[in-house]
Amino acid sequence: MKSFKKLFTSKPKPHIPESSFKIGGMGSLKLLDVIPSPEDDSHKLKKAFQGFGTDEDGIIEILGHRDANQRKKIRETYHQLYNETLIDALKSELSGDFGKAVILWTYDPSERDARLANEALKSKKKGIKHLEIIVEISCASSPQHIVAVRQAYCTLFDHSLEEDIVASVPPPLRKILLGLVTSYRYDKEVVDTDVANLEADRLHEAIKTKDLANDDIVYILSTRNFYQLRTTFECYKKKHGNPIDKDIEKSGKGDLESLLRMVILCIDSPEKHFAEVVGTSIIGLGTDEDSLTRAIISRAEIDMMKVKSEYLNIYKSSLDDAVTGDTSGDYRNFLVTLLGGKI
Amino acid sequence: MKSFKKLFTSKPKPHIPESSFKIGGMGSLKLLDVIPSPEDDSHKLKKAFQGFGTDEDGIIEILGHRDANQRKKIRETYHQLYNETLIDALKSELSGDFGKAVILWTYDPSERDARLANEALKSKKKGIKHLEIIVEISCASSPQHIVAVRQAYCTLFDHSLEEDIVASVPPPLRKILLGLVTSYRYDKEVVDTDVANLEADRLHEAIKTKDLANDDIVYILSTRNFYQLRTTFECYKKKHGNPIDKDIEKSGKGDLESLLRMVILCIDSPEKHFAEVVGTSIIGLGTDEDSLTRAIISRAEIDMMKVKSEYLNIYKSSLDDAVTGDTSGDYRNFLVTLLGGKI
Repeated sequence: MKSFKKLFTSKPKPHIPESSFKIGGMGSLKLLDVIPSPEDDSHKLKKAFQGFGTDEDGIIEILGHRDANQRKKIRETYHQLYNETLIDALKSELSGDFGKAVILWTYDPSERDARLANEALKSKKKGIKHLEIIVEISCASSPQHIVAVRQAYCTLFDHSLEEDIVASVPPPLRKILLGLVTSYRYDKEVVDTDVANLEADRLHEAIKTKDLANDDIVYILSTRNFYQLRTTFECYKKKHGNPIDKDIEKSGKGDLESLLRMVILCIDSPEKHFAEVVGTSIIGLGTDEDSLTRAIISRAEIDMMKVKSEYLNIYKSSLDDAVTGDTSGDYRNFLVTLLGGKI
Repeated sequence: MKSFKKLFTSKPKPHIPESSFKIGGMGSLKLLDVIPSPEDDSHKLKKAFQGFGTDEDGIIEILGHRDANQRKKIRETYHQLYNETLIDALKSELSGDFGKAVILWTYDPSERDARLANEALKSKKKGIKHLEIIVEISCASSPQHIVAVRQAYCTLFDHSLEEDIVASVPPPLRKILLGLVTSYRYDKEVVDTDVANLEADRLHEAIKTKDLANDDIVYILSTRNFYQLRTTFECYKKKHGNPIDKDIEKSGKGDLESLLRMVILCIDSPEKHFAEVVGTSIIGLGTDEDSLTRAIISRAEIDMMKVKSEYLNIYKSSLDDAVTGDTSGDYRNFLVTLLGGKI
């Protein structure tokens, strides 16, 4: 198949820099100029847990201003000092949405995502909303993170993420999710526009003939690098008139179509996807705290500044204001801290 | 599908210990009790390259007695000291089968396998013999090694291993190889005999109906852990009378059948697979040096003692004698050294 011939470098088209999946860059997390030692942090956390009532502000002040590496050192040191894991201590001290959020934030990101994926796969919910986390792990993360999640999944649950996908997701969604979570994409900016054009046509044909779970489609979406795919989606729009996700939406309203649109959005613009996750979790009656927490915790160290800008673009209001207005108490204080704001 | 329900621990049946994919254990490589510093080794190697003619014995004496970590340190140190990579130096000094073997041995194992896989995928050969290396990477290695090879492949060739498989391997072999190289199996000994029985039946049905490239078959072979699969193959034999590879052979002689038999052998008994690779490369007219080199170099640090024992079992003669009798000169000396023998 010609379109799968070896890629070569031609007209690289930057969309987002490679660093967008890397810690640092465009995150909202505010770190201290001088970071206390993990021993000091552990002592302070222990103190916050002791006595009459828990010092939630103290916990937020520490954990809400430490990056993944720093939190890892605190976890290790706390365990050594007190012969108890920090996670267990947090579990016994905190509860509700605040507790859930702090605990998720304190896990190693790969363990956090493995646990969220496992919860999603055990869920009896209909539709595909609960599978969002698996698409995010596989389409809005670096290849190293995906592998780390798969490794954590094996360690935590004594079998592989893939086995659980096969066991709990029906075809044809199964085939697509499996292709995506097993991907290890080239992660530099190498784009072949000829290939992008050919594959845009292949995608168009699949949409037209309602053959969306065809192996070729899975190969395109799960083996091509993100820059290449973004160019393919651009070519699609140029050649066939509509954005690809709109054409998929027009072709059907089933789970398969919804999943593919989610995949395409996550690949094309992770910041837009997460802006929509935040927006959807807030807008309407009640708040979907689990989704809100997940979006903020996953992206605070990666690209939250871009998510905020996309949010403003889509909803014509500030993400910070929306979160502040829709949450309360310690939960709000913690999210606002991760968003880089003052309490 | 019931057979894909969550695995649970029941009657673990050890076949080979987990360490069989780990460096150390059952390898044939002989290390020195006191290892010289990488600086000393680099100086000696440089000296072996200089002057009138190359000191091949000196090179064998050093590199043939260093494990992967030690070779890595020598590579790094040599580069720093002489502003030239050790691989480049070896390339300019050595040639023929000896040169190829020493260079493959000197690469990091993940880079070595990525290069071998790339060569295999570029090959215009018919049949599936040249794809053997890809099956070995994915079915006779640890999940960490597979990921390291995929990572090295991206770094070396600017696109992913999966993209090259899609581009150069026709369906249905493509689907099977893709499933295998993207696997990240659970690597501890957890076996569910109920699942093994169900999946043995599913495999039997696929063989009977000549539907070997069915998605279920790919899922079974690429998501289940090796211990689980070995139990499945045992169940197959007990329930359906023949070893599964024999039934596949009877069902057809095409590339698909050959590939699946190779996959099953690599999973069931990597040592038997490599004994056969050595045997086939030696027996008959001429020697297939590339296969012989690959087998010895890949397994010298892993399970060569078991490969030798399987060889004796199959061919009723010693692998060491066969290699000594069929090769000559520096090439022979190097292989014999890796096999743990005296020159």
